[in-house]
Amino acid sequence: MPRYALKIEYDGAAFAGWQRQADQPSVQGAVEAALARLEPDVPSIAAAGRTDAGVHALGQVAHCDMARDWDPFRLSEALNHHLKPAAVAIVAATEVTEDFHARFSATERQYLFRLLARRAPAVHERGKVWQVRHALQLEPMQAAAAHLLGRHDFTTFRAAICQAASPVKTLDELRIEKVETPSGTEFRFHVRARSFLHNQVRSFVGTLERVGAGAWAPDDVKTALQARDRAACGPVCPPQGLYLAHVTYPDDPFR
Amino acid sequence: MPRYALKIEYDGAAFAGWQRQADQPSVQGAVEAALARLEPDVPSIAAAGRTDAGVHALGQVAHCDMARDWDPFRLSEALNHHLKPAAVAIVAATEVTEDFHARFSATERQYLFRLLARRAPAVHERGKVWQVRHALQLEPMQAAAAHLLGRHDFTTFRAAICQAASPVKTLDELRIEKVETPSGTEFRFHVRARSFLHNQVRSFVGTLERVGAGAWAPDDVKTALQARDRAACGPVCPPQGLYLAHVTYPDDPFR
Repeated sequence: MPRYALKIEYDGAAFAGWQRQADQPSVQGAVEAALARLEPDVPSIAAAGRTDAGVHALGQVAHCDMARDWDPFRLSEALNHHLKPAAVAIVAATEVTEDFHARFSATERQYLFRLLARRAPAVHERGKVWQVRHALQLEPMQAAAAHLLGRHDFTTFRAAICQAASPVKTLDELRIEKVETPSGTEFRFHVRARSFLHNQVRSFVGTLERVGAGAWAPDDVKTALQARDRAACGPVCPPQGLYLAHVTYPDDPFR
Repeated sequence: MPRYALKIEYDGAAFAGWQRQADQPSVQGAVEAALARLEPDVPSIAAAGRTDAGVHALGQVAHCDMARDWDPFRLSEALNHHLKPAAVAIVAATEVTEDFHARFSATERQYLFRLLARRAPAVHERGKVWQVRHALQLEPMQAAAAHLLGRHDFTTFRAAICQAASPVKTLDELRIEKVETPSGTEFRFHVRARSFLHNQVRSFVGTLERVGAGAWAPDDVKTALQARDRAACGPVCPPQGLYLAHVTYPDDPFR
C-alpha cells in the first residue's frame, strides 16, 4: 500500500479547522472527500499540525495510503481537480516510505503570524491578517520576545483545552520583522519549535501586541512566563493572521 | 464649499467598476452612498482613473465638495464607518483648493499588475492575481517591454471602446520584477504614464505573458506595436491582477 506525503495550502476562513467534524466543513474532510473520488476506502489521513478554525496554511503536510500506485504529480493534479472550488490546494505530492508519518516524523513546525497596524479597515488583506488600528513599536516587542526563547514551562501561554502531556517546550525562534506594504505597516512574527501547545502562538502574539502598544513593558512578559499561570497571559489574538508555514522532517520528502 | 481629496483602496471583485451604474454595484456608488449619510445633496464625485470591473485600487484618488467644514481625518473615519462592509476604504483625506481636480490635475498614473505563475490553484492570492499554470521567462518579457517605452501610437494596445482623443501616449515605465513568494513565483509589472488608453495595461500584460511563455519572440511585440492594429495585440489578460497603485499631482495633496 504506497504512502504519499502531501504539502497542502489552505485559507482557514472557510473551515472549522483541520480536523474532520460531523457537521462542519474541515480541511481534512475536504481532502478526504477528494481522495474518495480517486479510490474507494482510502484510510483517514494524518497531518503535521491540527490547525484551529480560521488558521491558514502555506505548508501543512499530511500523508495518505493509497491502494494503487500513483504518479505523485498526477495524484496532486487529480486531488486539485476534485478539491475545486474549496480554498485548498495540494502544492506538492511525493511518495514516502511506510514509516513516514506526517505528524510523528516531524521535527519542527514553523508558523507565520501577520499583524497589520493601520487605521483604515483592511481591504486587500481582509481575513489574511489580524488588524489593529493603532501604531506598534517593534523594538519593545523584540525585547519581550527574547524572554520567550529557549526551554520553558509555557503554562501561561497554553489554552485550557490543550492536550499536550507537558507544558515544557523549547522555542527555537520568535523573530519579528516590520514590513512596509502597500496596505500599511505589517509585523510578521516567525515562530519555530519542535512542537507547540494549543493556542501558544496566538497567546504569544496577543501578549506581544500589548507590549508593542505600550500597555505592557517587555519585562512584564518575563514575569508572565514565570507565573506559569494562564491568567497571566495577555489577550489571545484572533486566528486569521496565523499560517502554518513549514514542517521539517529529518529527510525532507519534498526536496 | 470646501473640497476634499480622498485616497481610496478597493477590492474590484465586488464591483462593476469605478463608475456609478443604475443597476450594478460600483465603487463610485458606494462612496457616494457613504457621503450621502454625512450630508444631503453632496455633488457627484470625480476620480483620477475610472477602473474597469474587477480592477483593484491601492491609491485611487477622488475629490468631493462638502457643504460644511470637515476635519479631514474625521471625514475619512465617518466614510469608513458608513462604507462597511463594502470592500472599500478611505486611506487618507485632505482638504484641497477648489482648482484641484482628481482627474484633470493628475500628471501621472501608476499601475501594478500581479501575475502568479504556478501549477496548483491559487488559494491565498485567489482574486488578487492573474494566475497562469506554466513557467514564464523574465528576460524575454523585459526585452519585449523595452520596445513599448516612450512615445508611440498605441492603437494595437487599445480597446475598441476607448474614448481617448488620440492613440498616441508616452509610456514612462514598464518594469517587470520576479518575486518568489510563499504562494509561488510572481511577476510584478510596474507601469507608469501620464495617462492610459482603455485596456492598455491589460493588453500589454496579456501580450508580454505570451513572450514569457515562449509563444512570441520579444521582437514580435515591436512588430505588433508598429502594426497600429488592434488585431496584432496578444490576448487581453483578465482584470483581477490589476491595481491602480498611485496617482501623482504637481503638489501632492496627501504629503
